[in-house]
Amino acid sequence: MSDAGEFSVIDAIVAGAAQPATTVLGPGDDAAVLAVPSGRTVATVDVLVDGVHFRTDWATGEQIGRRAALASLADVAAMGARPTALLVGVCAPADTPIELVTGIGRGLQAEAQAAGAGLVGGDLTSSPVLTISVTALGEPVDAEPVLRSGARPGDVVAVCGRLGWAAAGLDVLSRGFRSPAAVVNAYRVPEPPLAAGPVAAVAGATAMIDVSDGLLADVGHIADASGVRIDLSATALTPAPRLLEVASALGRNASTWVLTGGDDHALVATFPAGAALPDGWQPIGTVLEDADGQTPDSAPDTVPDLASGVRVTVDGQSHTGAAGWDHFGRPG
Amino acid sequence: MSDAGEFSVIDAIVAGAAQPATTVLGPGDDAAVLAVPSGRTVATVDVLVDGVHFRTDWATGEQIGRRAALASLADVAAMGARPTALLVGVCAPADTPIELVTGIGRGLQAEAQAAGAGLVGGDLTSSPVLTISVTALGEPVDAEPVLRSGARPGDVVAVCGRLGWAAAGLDVLSRGFRSPAAVVNAYRVPEPPLAAGPVAAVAGATAMIDVSDGLLADVGHIADASGVRIDLSATALTPAPRLLEVASALGRNASTWVLTGGDDHALVATFPAGAALPDGWQPIGTVLEDADGQTPDSAPDTVPDLASGVRVTVDGQSHTGAAGWDHFGRPG
Repeated sequence: MSDAGEFSVIDAIVAGAAQPATTVLGPGDDAAVLAVPSGRTVATVDVLVDGVHFRTDWATGEQIGRRAALASLADVAAMGARPTALLVGVCAPADTPIELVTGIGRGLQAEAQAAGAGLVGGDLTSSPVLTISVTALGEPVDAEPVLRSGARPGDVVAVCGRLGWAAAGLDVLSRGFRSPAAVVNAYRVPEPPLAAGPVAAVAGATAMIDVSDGLLADVGHIADASGVRIDLSATALTPAPRLLEVASALGRNASTWVLTGGDDHALVATFPAGAALPDGWQPIGTVLEDADGQTPDSAPDTVPDLASGVRVTVDGQSHTGAAGWDHFGRPG
Repeated sequence: MSDAGEFSVIDAIVAGAAQPATTVLGPGDDAAVLAVPSGRTVATVDVLVDGVHFRTDWATGEQIGRRAALASLADVAAMGARPTALLVGVCAPADTPIELVTGIGRGLQAEAQAAGAGLVGGDLTSSPVLTISVTALGEPVDAEPVLRSGARPGDVVAVCGRLGWAAAGLDVLSRGFRSPAAVVNAYRVPEPPLAAGPVAAVAGATAMIDVSDGLLADVGHIADASGVRIDLSATALTPAPRLLEVASALGRNASTWVLTGGDDHALVATFPAGAALPDGWQPIGTVLEDADGQTPDSAPDTVPDLASGVRVTVDGQSHTGAAGWDHFGRPG
């Protein structure tokens, strides 16, 4: 990559990026300029690191770029917001094949465009480790974004999108296999239902989150933030037949993928009892009173709540497996 | 760091971050929510990598965090905007001393707060290499942000902030020295004149940029984007006495630091001839007609313009030294 030079690679990444109407000024100045007609923006950042979040022998550059974009876009969707812009930082070793970097750029651009967002900023720099930082901005479609803290006893818990598929794909890849493609590709490029987030907001969702740490962990975040308990239905979470087949072949438990796997970026939301769920949303559980009558933690989403295991149950029973994923290796 | 766990470290980074009135929802949900009363936001991202942009044996964690925040905040200022929010991604090896990570967090928070911005989002993940991504958002104080492309023949070129001090500090540190403190600290924590950007916008600045690649290179970006030539005054760019002393002791050329050093994040702007320069701005040159009558490049800031050497002169002469800094090692 050193021959081509930093600036031309940045140019290759942003070249041709279609810009939506909200992009007043795209890449190339000190900063981009965005129109925010509603006067509210949501903003989130995620970082993906080679060997931690992806492997270049498991996916193409374009797949890696798409996955990086989707991780941040799913966070915007989970607020009930429509993505408007991505800003990306790409760190790459000097000997990185330029095709890998341009592939990452193409993948970022493809998912930005598909989501209606502009790829408005980029910083490329050398680093010993390929690293991708994606900041996503978005515009809430409702007056108020949907937070994690709004679930109320009696609400229905519903999911939109796939659970366990990416985890199955990761399991397959980790064992050195490259198929079946259905699960491997689910890991390489997830399919978060981005449009379902704003639809859920308009439909009255009281709380929402995207499943990035695993269903139990992320439902636990809603329960903690809302000061409630949540009981999930094992029947509603029966793994898809294809997952059961793959699990059987590998000697794994498909339900563990469904309950604890991240990376699919499904959306989980709570809706008032009796509300008609929007298309694509399936009920998976119920919000209950917190037995202890506890108030929400003061910083419920950033401090690990060791008691959250008792706030989320499946058919009334605590789940005893690992609840989620901690990048520093501690059980979540 | 693995013992303390990911979430509590993130918490330590964001804990106590004062939030300005524009922060509707701070860290802890899928995304932050920001009020954008003017309906316009500027957005930029910069990534700093251990061993490339900083060294942990040259600066404390807090200094590294402050420097990372200031690099992005200066980009916001250079648009004539007031910073409103930072989102940070921190990648750290599992054996990173937790004090280093919390120091980085304190530094990021300190500069966010000093600039009036909220530290509204953070993602911490493991990586073999300590890496800091900072996205900065801001609100233009004038109806229109100040771009690089607005310089017109006859305009005065002016600078606010220091030139060459950080480059001198880098030179000192690179030789294994730790003093004089004045230049070493200028490298460790630059002092970009953040408030001067919005002031310049209100005062009628026609173009603006922050000096991150070096004065000649960044003035060249204005010249390229605006389709003009710029002649700088050597007298106006006479190095400060302290820089001349340091250069003499090291056997270096202080003018090279002033003309090609980045990292101080001074602001350079053009103002209409005869305009009263705001406090702190010093005239350093003049905007001239482009002799070739060329129109601006189609992508002037992302494609290296090999002809830009002739678009920026000092006392009418081309500068023959390295014009700037390319992270992949190619002369800019």
